[in-house]
Amino acid sequence: MLSAGTGTETPNCSGPLSAVPGTAAFATAVEQALTGYFATRAEAVTALGPVFVEAVGALESFVLRGGKRTRPGFAWMGWLGAGGDPAGDRAAAVLQACAALELVQACALIHDDIIDCSRTRRRFPTVHVDFEQRHRHQGWAGDSAHYGESVAILLGDLALSWADDMVHSSGLDPAALGRFAPVWAGMRTEVLGGQLLDVHGEASGDESVAAALRINRYKTAAYTVERPLHLGAALADAEASLVAAYRTYGTDIGIAFQLRDDLLGVFGNPEVTGKPSGDDLREGKRTVLVAEALQRAAADNPAAGDRLRTAIGTDLSDEQVGELRELLIELGAVDAVETRIAELTDQGLAAIEASSATPEAKDRLEAMALAATRRAA
Amino acid sequence: MLSAGTGTETPNCSGPLSAVPGTAAFATAVEQALTGYFATRAEAVTALGPVFVEAVGALESFVLRGGKRTRPGFAWMGWLGAGGDPAGDRAAAVLQACAALELVQACALIHDDIIDCSRTRRRFPTVHVDFEQRHRHQGWAGDSAHYGESVAILLGDLALSWADDMVHSSGLDPAALGRFAPVWAGMRTEVLGGQLLDVHGEASGDESVAAALRINRYKTAAYTVERPLHLGAALADAEASLVAAYRTYGTDIGIAFQLRDDLLGVFGNPEVTGKPSGDDLREGKRTVLVAEALQRAAADNPAAGDRLRTAIGTDLSDEQVGELRELLIELGAVDAVETRIAELTDQGLAAIEASSATPEAKDRLEAMALAATRRAA
Repeated sequence: MLSAGTGTETPNCSGPLSAVPGTAAFATAVEQALTGYFATRAEAVTALGPVFVEAVGALESFVLRGGKRTRPGFAWMGWLGAGGDPAGDRAAAVLQACAALELVQACALIHDDIIDCSRTRRRFPTVHVDFEQRHRHQGWAGDSAHYGESVAILLGDLALSWADDMVHSSGLDPAALGRFAPVWAGMRTEVLGGQLLDVHGEASGDESVAAALRINRYKTAAYTVERPLHLGAALADAEASLVAAYRTYGTDIGIAFQLRDDLLGVFGNPEVTGKPSGDDLREGKRTVLVAEALQRAAADNPAAGDRLRTAIGTDLSDEQVGELRELLIELGAVDAVETRIAELTDQGLAAIEASSATPEAKDRLEAMALAATRRAA
Repeated sequence: MLSAGTGTETPNCSGPLSAVPGTAAFATAVEQALTGYFATRAEAVTALGPVFVEAVGALESFVLRGGKRTRPGFAWMGWLGAGGDPAGDRAAAVLQACAALELVQACALIHDDIIDCSRTRRRFPTVHVDFEQRHRHQGWAGDSAHYGESVAILLGDLALSWADDMVHSSGLDPAALGRFAPVWAGMRTEVLGGQLLDVHGEASGDESVAAALRINRYKTAAYTVERPLHLGAALADAEASLVAAYRTYGTDIGIAFQLRDDLLGVFGNPEVTGKPSGDDLREGKRTVLVAEALQRAAADNPAAGDRLRTAIGTDLSDEQVGELRELLIELGAVDAVETRIAELTDQGLAAIEASSATPEAKDRLEAMALAATRRAA
C-alpha cells in the first residue's frame, strides 16, 4: 500500500534482516519467511491428498504474488524503532511474526474480493474467479461461480488460521508472545469490524463524514499502520510513551494515506496511477471526499448534492467525470480533504519526532509518512 | 453431534468445573465461558459503533443457541483422562481453552451454511439468511442475498479470530500454550481441508469409498473427536502412549459416528431422528454408504449403480426412497457399513481400554463411543 523506499539507504550489514521496509530486499525477506512457513505445513497438507495440495498451492501463489509487504514493514519498523536489533538472536523470530501479517492480509483480500465481486487482482483472476474457471473448464456439475466462492471462503479461512499458527511457531519467547497477543486480537477485530461497517454503510447509504472516517480509521489506518507498529513495539517491550506515539502516528498517517488515495481516485493522473481517471466515481465509492461534498451541499446547495448522489456509481463519460470534479472543488470538499491531510500529517510527524524512537526509525517513518500522503500514485 | 449423557452421573462435587461432558450442566459451563469471553471484548466492539455491536450480538446469539458442546466435551475429557484436576487451579483456564472450540465451530457452521445454501439451522435462519432478511426489511440498495453472505463471511472470520484470541487470553501457562498450539494448528487445517475436499468431491462427482472416507476422517473424526482429545492431552502434558490411544479412539469412533449418521440419514425413524426419512438421498449426499453401493454395483450390477446414481439428489417420493433402501441392502452396502462401524468401534474401545487413561475417563469415553455408534437418532 504505502510507496516504496527512496533508494537512499546504504545498509552497512548484509543478509535479509538488514533490509529496509519499503525496499525490494525487505519484500524478499518477507517472502522467504512465508515460503519457509508453507514448507513447514507441506507434510500435513500432503496427508489430505492432492486436491488439498493443489488448493494450498493456489493460496501460496496468491500470497507470494507481489504486494509491498507494507504491514510487515511497519511492524518491523516498530520493532527496530523501539531498539530491536536486526543482528540479534531474536530478529529471525520477529521477522517471522511480522511476515504473518501477510496471511491475515491474504484472507482479507480473498474474502473482500468475494464481497466486492472483484474479478481480477494484480492482473490475475481473484481466487474465487480462479476456482470458478477451474470448475467450468472441468465441465463439473453445479454452479461454477458458487463453487469458486466456496473454495475461496475456505482458503481465506485457512490463511487466517495459518496467520496465527505462523506467529505461534515463529520462535518468539513466551513473554513476547504474551505481549503480542492482545494487540493481534485488537487488530483482527478492527479490520473485520471496519469491513463490516463498510459493507453496511454501502447498503444503508450512510453519507456522513463521520461514518466514512470511521471505516477509514479501522479498515485502513488501524490495520495497516497503527497496529503493525504497535505489534513491533510490543515485541520489543517498548515503553508506553513510544507505543502511544506510534499509535498516534499510525492512526493519523493511515487516515491521511487513505484520504490521499480518495483524491487520487478522482483527480489522479491515469498515466501515473495506472487506473482510469475518475474510477472511484464510476464505482460509487463512499469516500470521505464524497461525504464532505454531500455535507457541504446539504447546507449550501441541495441541487448539487442531488446531482452528485445520482451520478456516482454510474457509467460516467470522461466529460461527466470532469463536471463532477468541478463540483467537488466548488463545494469545497477538495480543500477540506487537503486541509485534513495536512493536519493529520503534521500531527503524526510531531508525535514521532517527540518520541523515544531511534533516530533511524524517526527518519524512516517520516519518509514513509511523506511518501504516503504527498504521493501522486 | 454425539449424544447427551445417560443421566446416571451423580457428581459429588459442585460448580461448573465438576460437570460431566454430554450433560446440560457441562453445556452451561461452556456457555458461561463463552459469555464471559464476549464480555471481555465488549469495550473493543463498542468502540467501532452500534452497527458492529449489533452484528457481534448476532454472532453471540448464534454461538449460545444450543448445540451439544461436543468438541469442548472431548477436549475436557482428554484433559481429565490424562490426570487433569477439575478442582485444581488450572481447571478454569483449561475449560476456557476447551470452550474456544465452539468459536471455531461457529465459523465452520456459518461458512458451511453459505457453501451449502442452507436456509435454517436449529430452527432459526442461518446467519447469511438473517442478514439477507434484515437488508430486505430495511429496503436497502443492492442485492439482499449478497449482503447477507458478505456479513456472514466477515462474522465467520471474526469467530475464527476470536477462537485463537480466547485460547491466548485463557490464562493457560506458556508451556501449556506451547503444547496446545501445534495440535490446534493441525485441527484447523484438517477441518478446513476436509471441507474443501467435500466441496471438490461433490463438484467433481468423485464416487470412491476412499474419497468419502477421507472427507469423513478429516471433516468429522479429526475435528470432532481426535483433535479435541489430543488438545486436552496436550494441556495435561500427557505421555505419548496416551496421546496415541486418544488419537486411535478419536479417529475410529469419529468415523464410526459419521457412518452411523449416514445410515440414519437413509434408514432412520423420522419420529426419532426428527428429520424426514431418506432426506440424505434427496439431498444427494455423497456418503460412504452410497460410495460402497456404487463400488459394489460397478462389479456386480452396473444397472443398479446407474439407477442409484440418477435417483439420488432428486425429489424422491417415499416409495422411491423405499426402493433405494432395498437396493442399498441388496448390494451389500448396508452390511458393509455396519461391519465397518463394528470394527472401528471395537478398535477404538480397545485402544482406550489398554491406555493409561483414568478409570473414570475410560468409562466415560466407552459410554460416549457406544452412544455415538449405536444410537437411533
